[in-house]
Amino acid sequence: MGYNLKKQKGVQAMKRCRAALVQMDSQSDREENMRCAEAAVAEAAGRGAEFVMLPETVEYIGEDFAGHASRIPGPVSERFAGMARKYEVWLHAGSVTERQERKPCNLTMVFAPDGSLAAMYRKVHLFDVAVEDGPCYRESANIAAGDGLSLTDTAIGRIGLSICYDLRFPQMYRLYADRGAEILAVAANFTDTTGAAHWEPLLRARAIENTCYVLACGQCGTKPAFKAHGHSMIVDPWGRILSEAGEEPEILYADLEPEALRKARRQVPCLSNQRNDLYSLTGVVDG
Amino acid sequence: MGYNLKKQKGVQAMKRCRAALVQMDSQSDREENMRCAEAAVAEAAGRGAEFVMLPETVEYIGEDFAGHASRIPGPVSERFAGMARKYEVWLHAGSVTERQERKPCNLTMVFAPDGSLAAMYRKVHLFDVAVEDGPCYRESANIAAGDGLSLTDTAIGRIGLSICYDLRFPQMYRLYADRGAEILAVAANFTDTTGAAHWEPLLRARAIENTCYVLACGQCGTKPAFKAHGHSMIVDPWGRILSEAGEEPEILYADLEPEALRKARRQVPCLSNQRNDLYSLTGVVDG
Repeated sequence: MGYNLKKQKGVQAMKRCRAALVQMDSQSDREENMRCAEAAVAEAAGRGAEFVMLPETVEYIGEDFAGHASRIPGPVSERFAGMARKYEVWLHAGSVTERQERKPCNLTMVFAPDGSLAAMYRKVHLFDVAVEDGPCYRESANIAAGDGLSLTDTAIGRIGLSICYDLRFPQMYRLYADRGAEILAVAANFTDTTGAAHWEPLLRARAIENTCYVLACGQCGTKPAFKAHGHSMIVDPWGRILSEAGEEPEILYADLEPEALRKARRQVPCLSNQRNDLYSLTGVVDG
Repeated sequence: MGYNLKKQKGVQAMKRCRAALVQMDSQSDREENMRCAEAAVAEAAGRGAEFVMLPETVEYIGEDFAGHASRIPGPVSERFAGMARKYEVWLHAGSVTERQERKPCNLTMVFAPDGSLAAMYRKVHLFDVAVEDGPCYRESANIAAGDGLSLTDTAIGRIGLSICYDLRFPQMYRLYADRGAEILAVAANFTDTTGAAHWEPLLRARAIENTCYVLACGQCGTKPAFKAHGHSMIVDPWGRILSEAGEEPEILYADLEPEALRKARRQVPCLSNQRNDLYSLTGVVDG
């Protein structure tokens, strides 16, 4: 891919840390979107966040995703790497449209505080839906699907990466949990219609059934194809919503506590009570 | 097992029908519990229900499950069969404690309107939890786990069977959906503590992610080990709660519409958008 991932070796287990989610209203002005993102990262770092997360397609949302796809590595990834380094945070850069030989991909990158790239994930489930009296959207017309799942160790814990429509596929999150994920990250640009109906129960269920933290960072505002749902949220491993945004740009904060995760797993040990003799879930996970 | 299942051959696809869920407060008086169940089946049938569902451990809840286990087939199953026949309904008999050579099982039976037994399912995930300031419960001390999943064709559609704690295991429901389930049935005796935190989001998520109807019929009232959650509910394939009980015994009704299921699957085709090249879920399902 032209990018060397710097695997985070010997990173310790999940530790107490402050996470910040930056709910944004990205539009077609790429420079304005990046400026907003950087200002938010600076603000979150100033308030003690060690992990900052941005939403899906943070850098550009408009009619022409393919025409605005970025070479990775390139100026866009360098800029995110620079933010991580400057503010000394782990930066989950939401996603960007990544230029590829044929169709572009919807790519998540996670940067370490030294600016190195810790993980990449390309959205594997493309959003092809046709809601009556609601959005009609065919992501696969413009985007190629990724070909692998991705889990990464960070200083705040082991994180399973996913984007938006992935949320409807429980196998993916269970695979992450089975491989030690403590945090499930969902970068999103959910539609208002499907969001109002499905966003919260799916996010809470992923937290509860996997006894993981869920960080769900979304877009808000009116996009060309639909109104975005907003309502970014941080859910704890017991399924409690620790912090939730409204429908405007906002930075959410929560302190993630390893003890809350251990307690949830001690109380309801559903990960260890699985009946892998009756059903079997396998998959290839990078990380 | 000493019981011949009468497989429902050639049953047509899901059809419009009225389902009734009987939320009960079963206690240790078996005759009283059975009398309540029968009165409710009669009432529901009188109101046009073609499918009637009872909650987990409908016949007995007390300190001594093992001592009150029933031989199946035997008087208890005959009585349920008689109710189905008399009122001409499909009867999901919640679950009963089934006597076995060693430990008993937590057994669901589904009867056709001719009184024949259409399906059996023995709970596969046993509820061994220890919630701080909440219930501490070890089902496996008294109950043996089942060894298979069970899906059954009925006149109202294809139904995947499950009991209570199973709800936390998304693989089971996805397997049912992959094999054509249109309805997911959850017979339960959820605790008030875990129910308040987890019941609704998990039920709605199972409906949404599998685009299935969910029929969740629970116990209410104070049991020896904990207070039961109640809040039985019928959820449609879009995740809407069509009907929900409170904390008292009650019969819930909803009309299940094949078109609502088809519409949900047409709008958000997540079952056909699975990436079975990246992950694989396999299991043995009876039915």
